[in-house]
Amino acid sequence: MSQVLIKNGKVIVGLNAQVESVDLLVKDKIIVEIRPNIDATSLKKQDKNLTIIDASDKLVSPGFIQTHLHLCQTLFRGSADDLELLDWLRLRVWPMEAAHNPASLAASAQLSVAELIKSGTTSALTMETVHHTETVLETVERTGFRATIGKCMMDKGHGVPARLSENTTDSLNASLDLLKSWHSNSGRVRCCFAPRFAISCTQGLLETISKIAQENNILIHTHASENRREIEVVESETGLRNVEYLQKVGLAGKNIALAHCVHVNEREQQILAETGTHVLHCPSSNLKLGSGIAPITEMLERGVSVSIGADGAPCNNNLDIFKEMRLSALLQKMRYGSTALPAKKAFYLATLAGAKALGLEKEIGSIEVGKHADIIIVNLNNLHCTPTPDLLSTLVYSANASDVETVIIDGQVVMHNRELKTMDEKEIIATARKEYYQLVSRAGI
Amino acid sequence: MSQVLIKNGKVIVGLNAQVESVDLLVKDKIIVEIRPNIDATSLKKQDKNLTIIDASDKLVSPGFIQTHLHLCQTLFRGSADDLELLDWLRLRVWPMEAAHNPASLAASAQLSVAELIKSGTTSALTMETVHHTETVLETVERTGFRATIGKCMMDKGHGVPARLSENTTDSLNASLDLLKSWHSNSGRVRCCFAPRFAISCTQGLLETISKIAQENNILIHTHASENRREIEVVESETGLRNVEYLQKVGLAGKNIALAHCVHVNEREQQILAETGTHVLHCPSSNLKLGSGIAPITEMLERGVSVSIGADGAPCNNNLDIFKEMRLSALLQKMRYGSTALPAKKAFYLATLAGAKALGLEKEIGSIEVGKHADIIIVNLNNLHCTPTPDLLSTLVYSANASDVETVIIDGQVVMHNRELKTMDEKEIIATARKEYYQLVSRAGI
Repeated sequence: MSQVLIKNGKVIVGLNAQVESVDLLVKDKIIVEIRPNIDATSLKKQDKNLTIIDASDKLVSPGFIQTHLHLCQTLFRGSADDLELLDWLRLRVWPMEAAHNPASLAASAQLSVAELIKSGTTSALTMETVHHTETVLETVERTGFRATIGKCMMDKGHGVPARLSENTTDSLNASLDLLKSWHSNSGRVRCCFAPRFAISCTQGLLETISKIAQENNILIHTHASENRREIEVVESETGLRNVEYLQKVGLAGKNIALAHCVHVNEREQQILAETGTHVLHCPSSNLKLGSGIAPITEMLERGVSVSIGADGAPCNNNLDIFKEMRLSALLQKMRYGSTALPAKKAFYLATLAGAKALGLEKEIGSIEVGKHADIIIVNLNNLHCTPTPDLLSTLVYSANASDVETVIIDGQVVMHNRELKTMDEKEIIATARKEYYQLVSRAGI
Repeated sequence: MSQVLIKNGKVIVGLNAQVESVDLLVKDKIIVEIRPNIDATSLKKQDKNLTIIDASDKLVSPGFIQTHLHLCQTLFRGSADDLELLDWLRLRVWPMEAAHNPASLAASAQLSVAELIKSGTTSALTMETVHHTETVLETVERTGFRATIGKCMMDKGHGVPARLSENTTDSLNASLDLLKSWHSNSGRVRCCFAPRFAISCTQGLLETISKIAQENNILIHTHASENRREIEVVESETGLRNVEYLQKVGLAGKNIALAHCVHVNEREQQILAETGTHVLHCPSSNLKLGSGIAPITEMLERGVSVSIGADGAPCNNNLDIFKEMRLSALLQKMRYGSTALPAKKAFYLATLAGAKALGLEKEIGSIEVGKHADIIIVNLNNLHCTPTPDLLSTLVYSANASDVETVIIDGQVVMHNRELKTMDEKEIIATARKEYYQLVSRAGI
């Protein structure tokens, strides 16, 4: 049995994110008690290994959840800045994905998870590349991070490097093999289907995935309606708007997560709302690649499930939920005035809404008795968070990634006082730099 | 004589921001040598007090320059989040400005400068409140920071608290008194005129200021065309577009700095370009208050001088140039595609362009022999900046405020290894919190 007691913090408690002065007791992986003045002395007598964390003057928050990341791309950070979208994809991201080997993928995944934990993200939904996804799964498993990870599926498309092109059967079998080993609804690291996007998958593949996923309660994670060119291609190939087409082939529903949805018309928004399909909002990426601003306010008003992700490092360039959460709010305010998407709602998108997209809202996303202990401790007692009239608002608008001091995932302390406990930060950086140079050389960039 | 030698860094040198492996020697306030392998040992023999800073594996950059800040408002951080624009101003910012006394203003200014230095800003153009601006000037002078500071002038307007309303003569005399004591074209802390905006100043006041400013080479810092309601009021009162009206009363020219310019039509942009009037772009603030996105790409194409500022903490909520520089680039990419406003241009807006707005491009804004030593050292050897294919691009898109390790202003080391040298960080935070509570109580909020 492992126990962690968090004392004297201001804790963001429950579904309504109320800030309360309470202590938290975590037993094994689960939050078992939330109340003022939990007695540390008597607990320590029963359990000499009890970890006590003093959170005086600090904010204790549910860990953030990002629902659209590409861990495999973190090694490409800065490699595609200021390029045209097609050059971005065809000259950099695809050749670099094609050049990945297990060592470079492990380096990229480690670098990603270390950055995510240091910036307060405890859970993620990710899309990897076509090959070696087992390496990403194994690497993430070792870090203590919580993730649902998909092998990228691409059985169609122009300009795709040969190494990334699959036939339909191989693509499906490779995904099914991973799912057999890694899909478990109770596991910390799980597997999902990750077809790249409508343009790069045959209709047959998408329909088959949809059927298997529904029967086996598996998540499908894909991109949709990120940019205008993409929706034009889908429309010319299928005669349908992108989201309509996805619905037709079975990719609409509570187990479907669509990254971006920047260009979705009212009918498509209605489909997303009615089917419970999840939208994964990536504000920095949508700006940096010139895609646009997703109609988040409209989708939320219709009842669409919206959560947040940083997307890949080549189009962000960070994996920092604080930047994405603040920007999500600011962009909607620009569109609809200063009261749009207030702090509490932005916080919700970055926590519980992410848990819902993952189908894990009963397990994570808020601090409640019985939930898994995915918890961060944030120190707001610094210059840029002073004064602090409202803790939640300060967390959303003022705080930075570097204010996160302690991170607990599934009851395990994975960072304390900004020191990673399951990874060696210096070694991760050195390995990433080494693997980056080798990958660039293999990719011929 | 005081000397600082910065060894082994990657230095962003000159007007074209070339990254070079060179050492830098600073003598008193001035950069006197830029070349590889400056010999520390022989220098140390001649000057036992020589400060040697090892910048191995680090990026040495000109300090950032922000051209629109309100130091007096930093104490209002978080006090007006998610409010309607008019409530933001009338229920919070104006009553809080009216409630300022010298102690709360000094606390706010200290808090601001400490945050600015810790995030790599070495120079600023600021607008303070109506009263006690001498306190801000004195406080900033003591910190070692470089700033051009203006007393806010308001001799007109509806809904202004009595404490902030002035008659024209008093407003002018108060500004002239400050200028007499503080305006010096060679001083580190200087004074400027700061009429709030067209709506809150009489035409007579603006014309008088314009005349005095031109004759005495004084900067005028004001707000213009931030939101649609403001330009409607100017248009209904004067029959002119805001920038046309400002030009008519003498507020267009190389000594005029206009914050925001979100809603400026082509004719107004042409006036700004032809007269050399400076535009101070505040992207976070313009989003958070629902103002819009300034047409930066269009203005730059016309040759308008554009630089960057964080505006006040109640509408940002940080004073962090890294957030503003990155967002400036990302917003224009959203408008014009992924190649718009590339990293090097964003860096220019945050450095040399700011120096130009201040009329100090011969003194600061780049690292060159003969310029004042306003220099920062940034450590990019961390997770979120790895890998680092291009140092300048990494600085703009990946780096965070917390990566700034050392800050030198006018040859003085004001921060080293993230420790402030001219201020006591803990005391500043404690004082700010105390003064905030007293100010809120005085303001009756």
